[in-house]
Amino acid sequence: MSIRIALLGYGNLSRGVESAIRQNPDMELVAVFSRRDPATVKIRDTKAAVLSVEELPAWKDKIDVLVLGGGSATDLPEQTPKYAEMFNVIDSFDTHARIPEHFANVDKVAKENGHVAVISMGWDPGMFSLMRMISDAVLPEGKHYTFWGRGVSQGHSDAIRRIPGVKDARQYTVPVESTVARVRNGETPELTAREQHTRECYVVAEEGADLQKIEEAIKTMPNYFADYDTTVHFISEEELKRDHSGLPHGGFVLRSGVTGWEKEHKHIVEYNLKLDSNPEFTGSVITAYARAVYRLAQEGQAGCKTVFDIAPAYLSPKSPEELRAHLL
Amino acid sequence: MSIRIALLGYGNLSRGVESAIRQNPDMELVAVFSRRDPATVKIRDTKAAVLSVEELPAWKDKIDVLVLGGGSATDLPEQTPKYAEMFNVIDSFDTHARIPEHFANVDKVAKENGHVAVISMGWDPGMFSLMRMISDAVLPEGKHYTFWGRGVSQGHSDAIRRIPGVKDARQYTVPVESTVARVRNGETPELTAREQHTRECYVVAEEGADLQKIEEAIKTMPNYFADYDTTVHFISEEELKRDHSGLPHGGFVLRSGVTGWEKEHKHIVEYNLKLDSNPEFTGSVITAYARAVYRLAQEGQAGCKTVFDIAPAYLSPKSPEELRAHLL
Repeated sequence: MSIRIALLGYGNLSRGVESAIRQNPDMELVAVFSRRDPATVKIRDTKAAVLSVEELPAWKDKIDVLVLGGGSATDLPEQTPKYAEMFNVIDSFDTHARIPEHFANVDKVAKENGHVAVISMGWDPGMFSLMRMISDAVLPEGKHYTFWGRGVSQGHSDAIRRIPGVKDARQYTVPVESTVARVRNGETPELTAREQHTRECYVVAEEGADLQKIEEAIKTMPNYFADYDTTVHFISEEELKRDHSGLPHGGFVLRSGVTGWEKEHKHIVEYNLKLDSNPEFTGSVITAYARAVYRLAQEGQAGCKTVFDIAPAYLSPKSPEELRAHLL
Repeated sequence: MSIRIALLGYGNLSRGVESAIRQNPDMELVAVFSRRDPATVKIRDTKAAVLSVEELPAWKDKIDVLVLGGGSATDLPEQTPKYAEMFNVIDSFDTHARIPEHFANVDKVAKENGHVAVISMGWDPGMFSLMRMISDAVLPEGKHYTFWGRGVSQGHSDAIRRIPGVKDARQYTVPVESTVARVRNGETPELTAREQHTRECYVVAEEGADLQKIEEAIKTMPNYFADYDTTVHFISEEELKRDHSGLPHGGFVLRSGVTGWEKEHKHIVEYNLKLDSNPEFTGSVITAYARAVYRLAQEGQAGCKTVFDIAPAYLSPKSPEELRAHLL
């Protein structure tokens, strides 16, 4: 019997999970639940049901793992604890500062109801966290660096879209090559935000809008742009569609550390992702960890877990013997 | 109370562990056991005892984890099962083809005696295995590549040293740059050994030796060199000492995979190590996993485990709360 997955929400991330399930023969998508009218939600998997979120409680015994496809700002803080009461769940909660609070809320409900909940899964948090943690343990005297990009930041793109006179926008986060070269070379500088990343903005303005004013509004926006070297390119709607419709991303985590009796040897550990599709890779990570959620629940475990708490073998459909024979 | 580690053997790897323990305040090296006369073994840690291997059984209750520093050819197949009877153990067994057999032998003894044994730890097998396994689970449709180097291969250096007329030698394994570029670019070729790595040999010949004959003997040696483009440089003993006395190594594991409803998106995951000292990095990995061995044993677990079976949080001295707050 395959692992029965359901999705709450059907945005980019959920579509990524939908495709990933298709690549994992031991899993099946049984249903997509939406807050929209189900008749308006067109999914690609023809065997899965499309239902209103109101129907979710009735599926209590028909779903092994519920994947929460919502956003971190308002959806997940409410949804993950709520649905951990009825289901084993997994989310991609990525507001780093609020992770401890989210963990505590989810852990309480999951434990009380005997469910497994995995939070903050994807590539950052997720795979990058795993790399930071393991290389911190292996090289305790060192420094780590996380670079993102070159890739589309949806949060920054949205921030530009909220400026009056902007019709559409796409923002790329780009690592500063000279800084990357220094760190790869074994230097361990203290870096400002500006030294690590630049921000490239492609903006479609509304007709007659004051371009200079828009550019000014972007470049001085606190938190998002003011602390970075930001470039703004005004382009047409056609150009945006033609050249910037994908959601590529990536980045890398570097750990630079020393070993030896006199700390005389340097080591550089780098984990690097180049992703054609951010939501599909995130969805693929979540799908592998959904398998772990299922297995942990089968073992009778309960509570909230993160990437740090799960033995890697749980992610793979391969047997321990196969893993040892072919991948060790 | 700190975690009490002992070493069996005092070669390069054990010295790497000795230094790494010094960087981990929750651990201490309590003793080094040697098959040599202990009076001839000079260790650097002044607080640890140096004893004959004959004394090991008497230390049954004074050691939390015994690190086996021996070689995979003859030492570990015998030592790891033998000492798993008395101790929690960890080794760096790296003969890939014999891992299933080694695992079975160690698992049996460890389970019968209630000990935890971790085998095949280091960077390959070890960290590289982890990366192969996780990215195989995350991107099930794809291909992985492992490149080693540029770095010193001790096995290949030893093979050269066994040729008559050779006084000393150092062999560097070097990834073929053009192949690396293809794989990083998303191509997924089938590769021969020759297409992946070249072999650079620095050889000190005995006086009057036939250099052409030595070069011929190296280049035609089956398994080690015949399948590769091999270059041989004859140098003086002084040059070898001056330019080739370190044991740098490294390499990278790449996974190239596709996602999407029509498999239309490519992703490249790369884990890359640049190591000034191969044995010290290996020793650092083993030390972090020795912490995991200790904790798993404290929990009452028993049996043989590999890098696949251990949740990452066990490696770190930091609390789960700290890990979530700072590294997730």
